[in-house]
Amino acid sequence: MKLIRYGTQYQEKPGIILGEDMYDVAGFGEDYNEHFFETGGLVRLQDFVASHQGKLEKIPAESRLGGPVARPSKIVCIGLNYADHAEEMKVELPGEPILFLKSTTALSGPNDDIIIPRGSVKTDWEVELAVVMGARATYVVEAEAMDYVAGYCLHNDVSEREYQFERGGNWTKGKGCDSFAPLGPVLATKDEISDVDNLRLWLKVNGEMMQNSTTANFIFKIPFIISYVSQFMTLLPGDVISTGSPAGVGYGLHPPTFLKPGDVVELGIDNLGVAKQHVRAYTP
Amino acid sequence: MKLIRYGTQYQEKPGIILGEDMYDVAGFGEDYNEHFFETGGLVRLQDFVASHQGKLEKIPAESRLGGPVARPSKIVCIGLNYADHAEEMKVELPGEPILFLKSTTALSGPNDDIIIPRGSVKTDWEVELAVVMGARATYVVEAEAMDYVAGYCLHNDVSEREYQFERGGNWTKGKGCDSFAPLGPVLATKDEISDVDNLRLWLKVNGEMMQNSTTANFIFKIPFIISYVSQFMTLLPGDVISTGSPAGVGYGLHPPTFLKPGDVVELGIDNLGVAKQHVRAYTP
Repeated sequence: MKLIRYGTQYQEKPGIILGEDMYDVAGFGEDYNEHFFETGGLVRLQDFVASHQGKLEKIPAESRLGGPVARPSKIVCIGLNYADHAEEMKVELPGEPILFLKSTTALSGPNDDIIIPRGSVKTDWEVELAVVMGARATYVVEAEAMDYVAGYCLHNDVSEREYQFERGGNWTKGKGCDSFAPLGPVLATKDEISDVDNLRLWLKVNGEMMQNSTTANFIFKIPFIISYVSQFMTLLPGDVISTGSPAGVGYGLHPPTFLKPGDVVELGIDNLGVAKQHVRAYTP
Repeated sequence: MKLIRYGTQYQEKPGIILGEDMYDVAGFGEDYNEHFFETGGLVRLQDFVASHQGKLEKIPAESRLGGPVARPSKIVCIGLNYADHAEEMKVELPGEPILFLKSTTALSGPNDDIIIPRGSVKTDWEVELAVVMGARATYVVEAEAMDYVAGYCLHNDVSEREYQFERGGNWTKGKGCDSFAPLGPVLATKDEISDVDNLRLWLKVNGEMMQNSTTANFIFKIPFIISYVSQFMTLLPGDVISTGSPAGVGYGLHPPTFLKPGDVVELGIDNLGVAKQHVRAYTP
């Protein structure tokens, strides 16, 4: 299944993709949140869709989409999980995954604007494959880690490099600004993706290809990452793990290049859809 | 008012302290969550309590307490906000606040056990004053920052120093382990605290005083901190900001000393109550 959420921000309704079209499943009566994933919601949703075949209402193609997961308790990100990206950032390959948290208030829809924070001059892009957890995970072993996965999404791990590197301490300041986590368009359930270690992912700025890689280049693969993160904190159903970005971010260019108002970012991953984000300055 | 939440973990019910006793307000019909704070819940609660004077049911003194805020979207922490603590950690005074996020799955009740993660040998304590937000805050100016505060809590920012400093990258791994954010006992509303910049805070391990300071020693005061954080991310009602710990953590002792199973941690802040946490090893 491919799940979507659509409508006004903070009031999104659940939907689903069938064939080429989007259909409303608000009648299902649940949002795609922790409770949904924890209580077998994916199976219930499948039953609902099967029993309403031909009776679901089509959603207009121009509808705004929200992120396909409602209010995850956390967004855990893996830093430097592609060798070429570590090289362009001029840092050594990590011996074990680097973790950071992204404020969940950064979440936005896949085609919402990227808002450049007030005074920011180094807002950057990072196309990433995000994993959505389907079950509570604590001290999970690698061999069983995939049992805890609900599915996958496209994610732009938008990052402000001055805030991240030049303002002291952790990366927190540069990762969690509002609009810095456009997620979606879809949450594709695990069964939709035949080989998650062989997906092309790409990102263009103003039509120019900036990132173009494949998840075959992961340093740490998804089962290892889930097991690893679950040693340090419990992952809840609906939690998002973003698996790192390949080379081609603005910070690594010569000279470094960052987003400015009016820019257009497009990104995609095989079978997870595409997203298009206009860049604008913050306005109160 | 002094708000509490009590009962089984994840199923806590709201309560309130009147005089020396705890009273159930489950009849109020709301938990102390984002929606409660966002929609003037503190005023509604006050009205409810006033109109039920003498009719509220007393909660047994031995009841388990949960953290007094239900599922905040985030816990933002300030690193190194007391000069003496920066000195013992052998780091320079920060020129601006250091921020990090603590996984909200770390939240626990004020008297719940501290669970030493599997294989951990450097689990440490940090008594802190936590601020609970009462309203959505984005680019707030310092002069208005206190308008966005609901109240204050006692917080033990439990930290695993090997995970924090020796496992690569950010502090995320050492700050968000399950049970690493015991919060409470109470959420004291702003009006209960006459001078938040002059509160004694202390922490004992096995009866020995380890931290004993006052919020008068803050490097960055609360209005500045709120304004500062709100430049980097939107704070939601119910969000927790923990304002940093004074000197006396285990990492700064000679030799460094960490928690072990069987230890007892007690901590308190003037007018915010005391908490007592037994330390035990993780068991599946």
